[in-house]
Amino acid sequence: MATVAFIGLGNMGYPMAGHLLRAGHAVTVYNRTAAKAERWVREHGGARAESPAAAAAGAEFVFTCVGNDDDLREVVSGPRGVLTALAAGSVVVDHTTTSASVARELAPLCAARGVGFVDAPVSGGQAGAQNGVLTVMCGGEHEHFSRAEPVIAAFARSIVLIGPSGAGQLTKMVNQVCIAGVLQGLAEGLVFGQRAGLDMEKVIAVISKGAAQSWQMDNRAATMCRGEYDFGFAVDWMRKDLGIVLDESRRNGAPLPVTTLIDGYYAELQRQGRNRADTSSLVEILRAPSKL
Amino acid sequence: MATVAFIGLGNMGYPMAGHLLRAGHAVTVYNRTAAKAERWVREHGGARAESPAAAAAGAEFVFTCVGNDDDLREVVSGPRGVLTALAAGSVVVDHTTTSASVARELAPLCAARGVGFVDAPVSGGQAGAQNGVLTVMCGGEHEHFSRAEPVIAAFARSIVLIGPSGAGQLTKMVNQVCIAGVLQGLAEGLVFGQRAGLDMEKVIAVISKGAAQSWQMDNRAATMCRGEYDFGFAVDWMRKDLGIVLDESRRNGAPLPVTTLIDGYYAELQRQGRNRADTSSLVEILRAPSKL
Repeated sequence: MATVAFIGLGNMGYPMAGHLLRAGHAVTVYNRTAAKAERWVREHGGARAESPAAAAAGAEFVFTCVGNDDDLREVVSGPRGVLTALAAGSVVVDHTTTSASVARELAPLCAARGVGFVDAPVSGGQAGAQNGVLTVMCGGEHEHFSRAEPVIAAFARSIVLIGPSGAGQLTKMVNQVCIAGVLQGLAEGLVFGQRAGLDMEKVIAVISKGAAQSWQMDNRAATMCRGEYDFGFAVDWMRKDLGIVLDESRRNGAPLPVTTLIDGYYAELQRQGRNRADTSSLVEILRAPSKL
Repeated sequence: MATVAFIGLGNMGYPMAGHLLRAGHAVTVYNRTAAKAERWVREHGGARAESPAAAAAGAEFVFTCVGNDDDLREVVSGPRGVLTALAAGSVVVDHTTTSASVARELAPLCAARGVGFVDAPVSGGQAGAQNGVLTVMCGGEHEHFSRAEPVIAAFARSIVLIGPSGAGQLTKMVNQVCIAGVLQGLAEGLVFGQRAGLDMEKVIAVISKGAAQSWQMDNRAATMCRGEYDFGFAVDWMRKDLGIVLDESRRNGAPLPVTTLIDGYYAELQRQGRNRADTSSLVEILRAPSKL
């Protein structure tokens, strides 16, 4: 069992840290809003620290799951960041979805102190975090990955090293681009079918057996038809991820015409105040086509 | 066992008619190019007729699987069409992907002679036809559907009555719209990942476990990465189907912004001479982005 610090107790981090504790690791948590860390300790046990550095003191592994690139820079390399406290031989595992650039920027800063850095964004959502069955897409050195892997296993079903630093984040971006396209096609298909007067339950039952099948169809078509979005992956989070994707595409030259269009649709959903609605609310853009 | 006529021995109809014969039905075939019908009879047995009407004489069921709306009109209600020969109580099952309008136009023409008409487009492709495991989406009256269903079962795994005449065709359109979106998202994700230098085999292995999963990802991502398209569902056929979809959307008011964009990409693939390439060749549009 390992001594670990967990930085960031949001919707994802809160249950992930709990799984680490239940797996037998010694867990010290830090959260920007202290009340949430206090609640976590009351619920789980473990310890709470007043800064990322204090949480990391003596830790073999630091897990981060914060908001964005700048939040990550602050908790890793900031004045009270974990790097000020970590001993050589420890490993930072970052579960935030960030740009690939920040992973490539922090990995050498960590390496200069003998600390490993693995970018490790997850998929599987809040339910995956709660049930400890996340998918973890990793970038970094094999040595650091293989040390962290058995610890990550406390909350993950699938943990894969894709390539060097940044490769985990880039894989997550591919994931989000694929999801955006699937959802848009599904949304257009559903609205078309509803306008045509079809019994969509029957339609989905039959077409989900074939080449149109997708996870989104299996898990979101029914709620999209009913207009239910109070669950899942929020529009705000998707918009953040697509921003990272489009920014990276300007660097690598990949043309993303439909992803760009869909990013605009998500911007419109935000303007409509649907910030916390599930990403599948994309279909609502088609139901108010004056907004296209 | 039934006496059936099969009109149209293309990539799909040829093996479908074979399954009917092997299931014990008495099959008479008609094909516009007689040589193909001759070959079918040499290979399978059964009988060949010189016109749709001659094939339909004495048949309890007529199956049609032809090219487009006008081809269907000709073989059903044309001067040598099956309606000139069919007895009251027989049923026409149309497996062509057509507009919903032509189904709604032919069903009452058939009904006027006491003949049932079921629009029954299929999915599952040539492999599904060869293996007798097609999915069949039906529109029409329950009485005609339930009589035809056990005969259709010779080449289908899933046979569903969705609603009244045209509902089968409209369901197929929903299917094609969903596929177009899935493929475009997958294409953008793959090109992004390849430009980012990722090992796409590893990427697909991990993201296909989660919310980005689709039949297309499971069955086409690897060949799309390698640029292989000499199989599957041809660009020309997809373009025909999207034309039907977009035409119908003008009638029912469903906004299809991304489907419309993708239809233009398929038009570009046709201009590039990729008419017979699989629909997954959509990714090649992104590899020559000057064409966007």
